[in-house]
Amino acid sequence: MDIYMKYIPQFPDIVTASEAITPFVHRTPVLTSRQIDSASGAHLFFKCENLQKVGAFKFRGATNAVMNLTAEQRAAGVVTHSSGNHAAALAHAAVSRGVKAYIVMPSTAPEVKKRAVAAYGAEITFCEPTLEAREAAATAVIERTGATMVHPFDNFDIIAGQGTAAMELLTDIQAPDAVIAPVGGGGLLSGTAIAVRHMAPSARIYGAEPLLADDAARSLHTGTLLPALPPRTIADGLLTSLCDRTFTVIKDNVDDILTVTEEQIIAAMMLVWERMKIIIEPSSAVPVAAVLANRELFSGRKVAVIVSGGNVDLTKLPFGQHA
Amino acid sequence: MDIYMKYIPQFPDIVTASEAITPFVHRTPVLTSRQIDSASGAHLFFKCENLQKVGAFKFRGATNAVMNLTAEQRAAGVVTHSSGNHAAALAHAAVSRGVKAYIVMPSTAPEVKKRAVAAYGAEITFCEPTLEAREAAATAVIERTGATMVHPFDNFDIIAGQGTAAMELLTDIQAPDAVIAPVGGGGLLSGTAIAVRHMAPSARIYGAEPLLADDAARSLHTGTLLPALPPRTIADGLLTSLCDRTFTVIKDNVDDILTVTEEQIIAAMMLVWERMKIIIEPSSAVPVAAVLANRELFSGRKVAVIVSGGNVDLTKLPFGQHA
Repeated sequence: MDIYMKYIPQFPDIVTASEAITPFVHRTPVLTSRQIDSASGAHLFFKCENLQKVGAFKFRGATNAVMNLTAEQRAAGVVTHSSGNHAAALAHAAVSRGVKAYIVMPSTAPEVKKRAVAAYGAEITFCEPTLEAREAAATAVIERTGATMVHPFDNFDIIAGQGTAAMELLTDIQAPDAVIAPVGGGGLLSGTAIAVRHMAPSARIYGAEPLLADDAARSLHTGTLLPALPPRTIADGLLTSLCDRTFTVIKDNVDDILTVTEEQIIAAMMLVWERMKIIIEPSSAVPVAAVLANRELFSGRKVAVIVSGGNVDLTKLPFGQHA
Repeated sequence: MDIYMKYIPQFPDIVTASEAITPFVHRTPVLTSRQIDSASGAHLFFKCENLQKVGAFKFRGATNAVMNLTAEQRAAGVVTHSSGNHAAALAHAAVSRGVKAYIVMPSTAPEVKKRAVAAYGAEITFCEPTLEAREAAATAVIERTGATMVHPFDNFDIIAGQGTAAMELLTDIQAPDAVIAPVGGGGLLSGTAIAVRHMAPSARIYGAEPLLADDAARSLHTGTLLPALPPRTIADGLLTSLCDRTFTVIKDNVDDILTVTEEQIIAAMMLVWERMKIIIEPSSAVPVAAVLANRELFSGRKVAVIVSGGNVDLTKLPFGQHA
């Protein structure tokens, strides 16, 4: 029973996480845009985790995981394998709290991400760009150092930490008709769903996913956890599949997962950049695109959007060919 | 004497402008960035007029000009010739207050700017892309309609309106060591200088200008008002030269005008986009570049930067070739 209780976070776990991490994370603003309201027909509230430290909500979960380490675990450090925002988030969360961070990255990761993780003070181990090589390298680090593995989403403390964004959001705006978040591995959507179910029980909860990585939508619709698809979407934060833990939360709490095309993602990203003057990454444009594409669900409604992050490679933007 | 008093705004004119326009403009936030502080060695405060309506500080001056029309002038409308932010700002400021706006634009202006001005409800007159053709077209509009010309910077009410950004800034942060703003025609820098001299008399006041459009710097250094240079800089908001009115204010109040290269402008723009996750236009990156390039002036100092705007053509970004 105690193990089960540590499997799926409940709302009090998000409250506890919020108390633990609030001194270290930004309370990000909730922004609105009359022009995007006009384009969508909805009343949109953007919870701007692109303005979070490390440029992504991932810093919340990573900080909560670090704060929940035992003294013994703190002394040995943390490890993860990732080339994305979770790697940078765990590196910064750990090192800034005096805990060693070991990050396993594929040697093919973009230089800018390698430099960012190194700049946060993590020890990087490079490996071949396969899941097997990553897991083997992480296992080797654990055997050598005794570090604690912090999975990017299949982790109780991570999910509870990610839920603090929605908790703040629902403190700032009351009673939305719907809340929508992007879904990759499902850590953000799970934490969001747990917070929203408690704080705004009548609100509909949506995930948003690229059509080219619609494993979560098909998992929800079929009731069977499906594996990830080949990485073809521009929304590089949403490539992974759900795990049993996040799938359980999502099945029980999420009303639907909406899918959008690459063209819709790019158009939504340009709309937010041009009208709101904020940088959001492609993964964050996915729920915006879903709101724009589903007027029958959102028109006239008060809709909260979790903007997951703002880390983009400015030298590889998808805009040029759309001139 | 009364005419002289209406030539150069004084601080009370900025206070009056602020009272007139506050119901209609955004009070933009002042943002900070630990990472850009670390890159510059300074403590930077960014007054974010990129988040202003129309995406630029120009909406302040334009709104003030419209609010100061007589009843007779209101009935006849306003006119200007511009292809930039002032055209959109005057269009929106006038039409949203029930005043007709006639905008003269060169037929070669970007489609996106034509659409924006039209969307704000202005009547557009197209002309050849020369100053002579613009002025002739504006004169024809005035003869036909009796509209009042609202110059983008050689205008008392415009300068007083632009000064309200610095006034708000100095209400939010006290006693900066320096304030820096971009300079093109000098309306923003003049209004800023008048506000800063009164509210933070010991602060140094700097303009920032592209080296490829350094007519204001050379005018200040030689004491003689010099004409604009051929339009070669990416900072397309800073192409015009000063007028006698703005040159007078700048000579009397501005400590120096600092110049930066195109490479420095692009690097500063990327730095702000990547670290602050906000969109600033090239003209707004000019003062950021000047702070980064002049450590001897700014290191260890509290420096306020006027971020003038965030209107960029996302299909023509200067980043690709810097991969």
